[in-house]
Amino acid sequence: MMLLSLKLSYKTATGQDYQAGLPPRDLASINNCTKEESEDLVDPWTVQTSNAKGVDYDKLIVRFGSSKIDTDLINRIERAIGQKPHRFLRRGIFFSHRDMDQVLHAYENKKSFYLYTGRGPSSQAMHVGHLIPFIFTKWLQEVFDVPLVVQLTDDEKYLWKDLTTEKAHEYAIENAKDIIACGFDVNKTFIFSDLDYLGTSTGFYKNIVKVQKHVTFNQVKGIFGFTDSDCIGKISFPAIQAAPSFSSSFPQIFNGKENIQCLIPCAIDQDPYFRMTRDVAPRIGLLKPALMHSVFFPALQGAQTKMSASDPNSSIFLTDSPKQIKTKINKHAFSGGRDTIEEHRKYGGNCDVDVSFMYLTFFLEDDDRLEQLKQAYTSGELLTGELKKVLIETLQPLVAAHQERRKQVTDEMVKQFMTPRKLAFEF
Amino acid sequence: MMLLSLKLSYKTATGQDYQAGLPPRDLASINNCTKEESEDLVDPWTVQTSNAKGVDYDKLIVRFGSSKIDTDLINRIERAIGQKPHRFLRRGIFFSHRDMDQVLHAYENKKSFYLYTGRGPSSQAMHVGHLIPFIFTKWLQEVFDVPLVVQLTDDEKYLWKDLTTEKAHEYAIENAKDIIACGFDVNKTFIFSDLDYLGTSTGFYKNIVKVQKHVTFNQVKGIFGFTDSDCIGKISFPAIQAAPSFSSSFPQIFNGKENIQCLIPCAIDQDPYFRMTRDVAPRIGLLKPALMHSVFFPALQGAQTKMSASDPNSSIFLTDSPKQIKTKINKHAFSGGRDTIEEHRKYGGNCDVDVSFMYLTFFLEDDDRLEQLKQAYTSGELLTGELKKVLIETLQPLVAAHQERRKQVTDEMVKQFMTPRKLAFEF
Repeated sequence: MMLLSLKLSYKTATGQDYQAGLPPRDLASINNCTKEESEDLVDPWTVQTSNAKGVDYDKLIVRFGSSKIDTDLINRIERAIGQKPHRFLRRGIFFSHRDMDQVLHAYENKKSFYLYTGRGPSSQAMHVGHLIPFIFTKWLQEVFDVPLVVQLTDDEKYLWKDLTTEKAHEYAIENAKDIIACGFDVNKTFIFSDLDYLGTSTGFYKNIVKVQKHVTFNQVKGIFGFTDSDCIGKISFPAIQAAPSFSSSFPQIFNGKENIQCLIPCAIDQDPYFRMTRDVAPRIGLLKPALMHSVFFPALQGAQTKMSASDPNSSIFLTDSPKQIKTKINKHAFSGGRDTIEEHRKYGGNCDVDVSFMYLTFFLEDDDRLEQLKQAYTSGELLTGELKKVLIETLQPLVAAHQERRKQVTDEMVKQFMTPRKLAFEF
Repeated sequence: MMLLSLKLSYKTATGQDYQAGLPPRDLASINNCTKEESEDLVDPWTVQTSNAKGVDYDKLIVRFGSSKIDTDLINRIERAIGQKPHRFLRRGIFFSHRDMDQVLHAYENKKSFYLYTGRGPSSQAMHVGHLIPFIFTKWLQEVFDVPLVVQLTDDEKYLWKDLTTEKAHEYAIENAKDIIACGFDVNKTFIFSDLDYLGTSTGFYKNIVKVQKHVTFNQVKGIFGFTDSDCIGKISFPAIQAAPSFSSSFPQIFNGKENIQCLIPCAIDQDPYFRMTRDVAPRIGLLKPALMHSVFFPALQGAQTKMSASDPNSSIFLTDSPKQIKTKINKHAFSGGRDTIEEHRKYGGNCDVDVSFMYLTFFLEDDDRLEQLKQAYTSGELLTGELKKVLIETLQPLVAAHQERRKQVTDEMVKQFMTPRKLAFEF
């Protein structure tokens, strides 16, 4: 019984069944499981599920070998910061983590950390889903009072897409404006484009080449599914996303200090990069980054797929007018309601697959109101059109306010955020 | 194999890399031929031949698809510079080229170029053979009056050897001192360590990632023999050796100009990197670098193998004392002489396999004297001991003078050479 329980713990921690004599898992095997048939497919380029409710996140935790953000952890965060946890925590939107106990233990003992998140600037157009990691990261920066680095992987987009380096860099700058508009503290935030920063940092390339020495092609093939026909740029790119996990990649910020703990808030599809990073870190004498993973933001058409920035109707874009928002939601938001008003009144709607309701869980701050809406919709009291109206009235001011803040972002501010420099923080 | 051989003959006959109507060559097929059994093996990590005279360079020209540096080309160089060609040209030590006609045509029409050469700093110890490309490059810089960039691939050595980045970088600085001691003009020469320069150039990484986008793993596998177990750093490294072939990698020197012709003097084993570079260049809108290839400098023990910096008896090191030079040559230099004085007098020595004679072709400037020595040794008039004495008396002052110049190289001078800056040249 004791042994059985140990084996179960092993499985939760590693995503593998315990087998006596099994050699330590290697990186490739960690991820093979993401490609099993009839399961959800989740990697940095593809998120696929056949379930209208979306990806099964509990299963993903087991498969990825991460840990659930449970009530205990949320309560501990609340105690540490002395504030109500963010709605993304309260509602399980950031649902999984690695090593948060360690981060909190250090924090409780006055040892700080830094935040690292990022974005692949594949186009100028960002949608409300892209805001999720930034909204949460901004909150973490505020409540923990820590510095933040934001990587814009314009090199990745150049490698993967039919783009020039100039175009990819231009998208990075445009995306930086949207990120700045989220309200980050310029004195504690460094935003960088890879194409620029690699050529201006004495520490970044050194960490990249260290990671590159300790990861084989076999490993990236296993983790990311690369093939022999992939260009060598793609094959070596994972090291470039890994390196900002180490404080020595930012000598200007951390004054050359090597082992400041990093915490990465990101969507769960980015985890393969950081599983690789965590595997390499001890072998190059550096700290493993901690992580907090979010669920995916569903497309308007339903939770089966990740959204596409190239399909304007798949989400609400940050450039949409109030009228566009209204039309898109009314026309495209997948409904969990019944076919007729009569049936809806009788049987009620299904919040688990209703995209308008899902969006409200991301953006409606008021917990009581959300619960009321859920009950009213489920009971049939609230109709789909009425639920959509609530979402429209929630997103219209949110997007308008974002647009207003973005308009205030000057080239000078972008330059400030993107200049490698000392931040207002002592470690 | 028959077809490949026909294609290669075609290449030699026409000097063309491929022919209209044939499918575009792929990079892998260019190099497969270097791995044919029973032929010399030549790649950046291995040079092997079973012939005591050394590698068959005429065959190598055919296999690599380069062109012979013939009398016509040497005469044209002489006319262009108005000076006697260097002994390395007169004696076929730089024996092969790519696109020198184009470089000279442009030069004759007042269009200049820049030089690029390099060294992998695997240890502090450099031997006289390592000087060959630098001696020749210094001469080219002088007679053509052109700028030069010297790449020290400390990142490569970190990736391939059991070295820390710090150690590899330290070797790079030590090697830079030996290179500076060759007499380069500080106003026209930029020496850089990859580990440093990648983090200080706005142009270098952009060209690296451009090359990395246009070369697949299949291609580097074919060219360099990488396997799935190699680290992703090795796999992507060829792009880092490629990028200095493009002037936009040095915005400080060339003021952002993209298409200044590059000429690379190097040993023939480095050619695979630049065949790859030349294949990629037009696809990223940049000029193909031209090349001049040297033969290998033989080990003291004979021309069958490339020398090893880790075997102190395999060559004359730049740190050797006059006594060490004398002892090493007398003890280890492979002799083409006969077993007894009587036989030697009767049948004569064999200059083709005699390492002392080979070394003299590299270092004895006086053509007439060299010819006299050859005749006297071949006829049996000159004994091995006497020939060795000439070599000893040639190398002792050469190495002593190098040591003297190296002593004069201050840290300040190293810093000057290694600072990215405008050079004394207008393009």
